[in-house]
Amino acid sequence: MAETYVIGHKNPDTDSICSAITYSHFLKLNGREVKPARVGEINSETKFVLEKFGYEKPELIEDGTRKRFILVDHNEEGQRVSGDYEILEIIDHHKFDFSSSNPIFILNKPIGSTCTIIAEMFFENELDIPKDIAGLLLSGILSDTVIFKSPTTTEKDKEIAERLNKIADLNLVEHGKEMKKKGAEIEGVSMKELILRDSKEYDFNGKKVCIGQLELVDTEEFLTRKEKIFETMKSIKEEKSYDSLVFAVTDVMKEGSTLFCLGEEENVGKAFETDLSSGKAYLEGVMSRKKQIVPALEKVF
Amino acid sequence: MAETYVIGHKNPDTDSICSAITYSHFLKLNGREVKPARVGEINSETKFVLEKFGYEKPELIEDGTRKRFILVDHNEEGQRVSGDYEILEIIDHHKFDFSSSNPIFILNKPIGSTCTIIAEMFFENELDIPKDIAGLLLSGILSDTVIFKSPTTTEKDKEIAERLNKIADLNLVEHGKEMKKKGAEIEGVSMKELILRDSKEYDFNGKKVCIGQLELVDTEEFLTRKEKIFETMKSIKEEKSYDSLVFAVTDVMKEGSTLFCLGEEENVGKAFETDLSSGKAYLEGVMSRKKQIVPALEKVF
Repeated sequence: MAETYVIGHKNPDTDSICSAITYSHFLKLNGREVKPARVGEINSETKFVLEKFGYEKPELIEDGTRKRFILVDHNEEGQRVSGDYEILEIIDHHKFDFSSSNPIFILNKPIGSTCTIIAEMFFENELDIPKDIAGLLLSGILSDTVIFKSPTTTEKDKEIAERLNKIADLNLVEHGKEMKKKGAEIEGVSMKELILRDSKEYDFNGKKVCIGQLELVDTEEFLTRKEKIFETMKSIKEEKSYDSLVFAVTDVMKEGSTLFCLGEEENVGKAFETDLSSGKAYLEGVMSRKKQIVPALEKVF
Repeated sequence: MAETYVIGHKNPDTDSICSAITYSHFLKLNGREVKPARVGEINSETKFVLEKFGYEKPELIEDGTRKRFILVDHNEEGQRVSGDYEILEIIDHHKFDFSSSNPIFILNKPIGSTCTIIAEMFFENELDIPKDIAGLLLSGILSDTVIFKSPTTTEKDKEIAERLNKIADLNLVEHGKEMKKKGAEIEGVSMKELILRDSKEYDFNGKKVCIGQLELVDTEEFLTRKEKIFETMKSIKEEKSYDSLVFAVTDVMKEGSTLFCLGEEENVGKAFETDLSSGKAYLEGVMSRKKQIVPALEKVF
């Protein structure tokens, strides 16, 4: 029988990688033979987290043919590893678009991170959580909720983080800021990578739309590179044949995003009731791709 | 704000109706304002169960426009009430085919009945289960697992039934047999109703296929009405423009089904490695539409 991997989405973020490792640990405690995996290179935020808690990068899987997967932190085809494979389970916190020919275990909760859901499963099953696993779970929560500032954050995320921190014993805000700072390191990183490293592709009513997001503690300096941003977006859009490329530069402290848009400017502008004819607009209070940007775009397309 | 209803699938069975009532009770204990509902007329098995435990039929909903629904025991569009409405949650144990534009709570488990999942939620949350609610939950489990004989039955279903019966104090096999006997009452019921009352429509690669099932404690006498069965199937197939109409007459005691098939006989026969050119074949060990008939047909279509 093919090996079973626990795997997160393409362009993996900290929640995806930490979910894959911690849910593998959970399943092993329940007697299941599984391995964590990843679809792409980890980002610098995740690298910092894995080093801090003493974990290696999970195995890289580029094509899922003849394997069996447990999906964490994603469910839609566009976010999944390519190939022809069996999906055994899904643990997620995103909008849903999935079909299977057999009943499988699915747990999707409208909360801030997949790591919150996995931590709940440890607690519900009264399983021991080692200190480093608690650290990974907390890192996933802090990353996806932007240190509890994202509007996707729920009381459950905070409550679970508090319980986990009785084990991990971290300064949560400091750890979160340090993570975000590492993730926001943009020195020596190409503009193309900055736009794409946290990007997801969507099919909105037949239109191929890519939405990238860059979270920075302070966006001012980065935004002076406006021309380089547009130039790079233009070449990405052409290379990948996107109908629209959207790039949100999120200011974690100001709690808002500067949106860059190339293609479908009128529709995207309408989604946020703003004028995007210049290709750029500041959106007060917009911090979450999942909860704010994607639903708004889905409505207008 | 529109009212929120907890609702099961079209052609409701005992698991759907008991899930709607018991999950409404669960949510009310958690401070949520919801009502149980049903999409169609209840069958005689369910009628017996509701009378036994002192419950009214839930409210009938024929069109879901401008309502909000929590789906139990189904998720696919073909099984849902028609209309344009918001889906807030899904608790189910079937194969999946669902998409949403927002993250919602989804819990799908590959086990014998939705009532098992709901009972687990009561236990996990340490909520009090009244005796009559335990009776409904047990009835849903016994009905969907055919008194633990269906191959969809898991250890979890048996374990939860045992815990529930500490409250309900029923003779499970006797209660299950009595339910099935009531459900199998075919005197005075038209052949059309017998074929359709537990039927579901599927889209298999563009083919419109309807699969009806009739569970009987003894099928011998019923099967002598072969000509009437084919004649009625023919008129249903024409009226509803099905590409194929499949009717499984399941013998609960012999643990097998006689399959009648009109349209696509070659494909359907291939699915069960049998010759269906006469439109009829006995399938040893086949008892579950969900776990045996649907996946087999999906593969060949």
